[in-house]
Amino acid sequence: MRIALDAMGGDKGLSPIIDGGLLAAQEYGVEIVFVGRREEIEQELAGHRLSQSLHNSVQIAHASEVVHMDEEPGAAIHAKRDASMVVGVQLVKRGEADGFVSAGNSGGVLGAAQLFLGRLPGVRRSALGTVYPTLHGYCFVLDIGATTDCKPEYLYQFGVMGSAYAHGVLGIETPRVGLMSNGEEESKGSQLVKEAHQLLKAGPLQFIGNVEGKDIPNRPADVVVTDGFTGNVFIKTSEGVAALLLKTLEREVKRRPHAMLGAMLAKSALRATRACLDYTDYGGAALLGVAGVVIVAHGRSEAKAIKNAIRVAKQAADSNIIKVIEEGVR
Amino acid sequence: MRIALDAMGGDKGLSPIIDGGLLAAQEYGVEIVFVGRREEIEQELAGHRLSQSLHNSVQIAHASEVVHMDEEPGAAIHAKRDASMVVGVQLVKRGEADGFVSAGNSGGVLGAAQLFLGRLPGVRRSALGTVYPTLHGYCFVLDIGATTDCKPEYLYQFGVMGSAYAHGVLGIETPRVGLMSNGEEESKGSQLVKEAHQLLKAGPLQFIGNVEGKDIPNRPADVVVTDGFTGNVFIKTSEGVAALLLKTLEREVKRRPHAMLGAMLAKSALRATRACLDYTDYGGAALLGVAGVVIVAHGRSEAKAIKNAIRVAKQAADSNIIKVIEEGVR
Repeated sequence: MRIALDAMGGDKGLSPIIDGGLLAAQEYGVEIVFVGRREEIEQELAGHRLSQSLHNSVQIAHASEVVHMDEEPGAAIHAKRDASMVVGVQLVKRGEADGFVSAGNSGGVLGAAQLFLGRLPGVRRSALGTVYPTLHGYCFVLDIGATTDCKPEYLYQFGVMGSAYAHGVLGIETPRVGLMSNGEEESKGSQLVKEAHQLLKAGPLQFIGNVEGKDIPNRPADVVVTDGFTGNVFIKTSEGVAALLLKTLEREVKRRPHAMLGAMLAKSALRATRACLDYTDYGGAALLGVAGVVIVAHGRSEAKAIKNAIRVAKQAADSNIIKVIEEGVR
Repeated sequence: MRIALDAMGGDKGLSPIIDGGLLAAQEYGVEIVFVGRREEIEQELAGHRLSQSLHNSVQIAHASEVVHMDEEPGAAIHAKRDASMVVGVQLVKRGEADGFVSAGNSGGVLGAAQLFLGRLPGVRRSALGTVYPTLHGYCFVLDIGATTDCKPEYLYQFGVMGSAYAHGVLGIETPRVGLMSNGEEESKGSQLVKEAHQLLKAGPLQFIGNVEGKDIPNRPADVVVTDGFTGNVFIKTSEGVAALLLKTLEREVKRRPHAMLGAMLAKSALRATRACLDYTDYGGAALLGVAGVVIVAHGRSEAKAIKNAIRVAKQAADSNIIKVIEEGVR
């Protein structure tokens, strides 16, 4: 198993990425191909004392260019054919890597994957999916931003792809699939959602009907299907509300000397709460529907998040998710 | 100033509604017309010792039927022409009340208002707006569920209506209007959002561009415009995440004896945090674009929430919001 890792992606420079790649190589026994400027990668690697076996499981694929976080992704991947994310995707396309992980400009990674890998036969649009914390473990939400404007058939296929992912990567025997809507009743939803509801209902998935944002934390569904616009609003709103709540709590605590002491005593519980909800740490988002395994890690990723993203790429490749999706959308 | 109040709406029976109406009559000097079954209202009122002046400011408008929470609203308001929410809306239509407040079946209230009051001249679709907590006071979000499928022009008008509301009711001199999207850049968004962006940009409002769910808590905008599907997902997701976070914190605290003590010490800070974020207590949602003031209170409303909803109805009527909207959409 060989995973290509974009060494140039991420907000925090090469260091956490190289660290994460080495951790994954040790822990999961995968080979890592660091993609990016050879000299910079070698310099970073020189700072580590690698065992012979670890040394053998690491390679470098040189790529002279970088797509930066603030670049317009569409233009960048066309202009920079030697960008690390383009070269990484090409390694997957040529079968020289079983998957690609990048914490770089996410629009760029999506664009490069769609352009150079292309969609699987029968797949109408690709979808980006992420695990989402609930009170009872994680569920899988897609699309969170690959396809902004959707048709009912796209949402149906997102259900198929999400179900395959939840089975293969998350290990759920028969995933329950829900459709994000503004009400549980079948009659609720936009025109798009109402039509997608009928398609999902008629299909072979274990479709449980509409789910609402307020119920998702109770995990009625293992897979939540939505269009890329709504899914993106859903994810970002969740981030915003969690931050709002924690900041408000901090402010209210600071106003009360008793509460300050209390918060100190409850510090580890607060930290655990934060950790439970930090899905960004869980391993990144999977781009489904393209002809290869591509995992988009969060730009802020630390070594642990990079390591987790590589684990997810490995699981996706191990479970042959590409083939399962190809068969599911037929 | 006379406000009609649906005595039969709400999950908790007549009691909190009658209490809330009486509180509002005392505090804001408004007349209250309780709409519903006369006998039940009189019985409830008999339990209160009303001063002569309070007695004089209370009336009853009999309505023999009730639209229940679990009824299909469209069918119900057609079948039950003597339902309290229909009679209440009619009082506004005939000019016998300056506004109507209901904590009943919200689909029913929207339907009754749209059917019997109708839209203001020039208004393409009505929108339901609510205040939303941020780190720096509240902003106003619309539409949260009146119009599920929108066109760009509808969103433009929601901006106009939301701006009028923020000015008249929330007292913001020149409200900053933002458009909910999946990215701040002008190029981001669904087709709908991109086109609405151009309309808002070309119009006379103080349009600040796209806003994301993760930024709204920092209150970049006083008014956030979105379609009724996305807005509903936004509100319900916010509810869900807040509940998830507080429940996770509770669970993590219970696992740690130290933290249990800490949480006790920080109890009032936790309560204050909850209260800060409980927008349902703030006075309900305003239906904008119809030819009359209609406020939809939360079904779970306690007396205080009902009182607040009446205050909002009074402010909307005082600020002549109907006329401002009518002129704004011209």
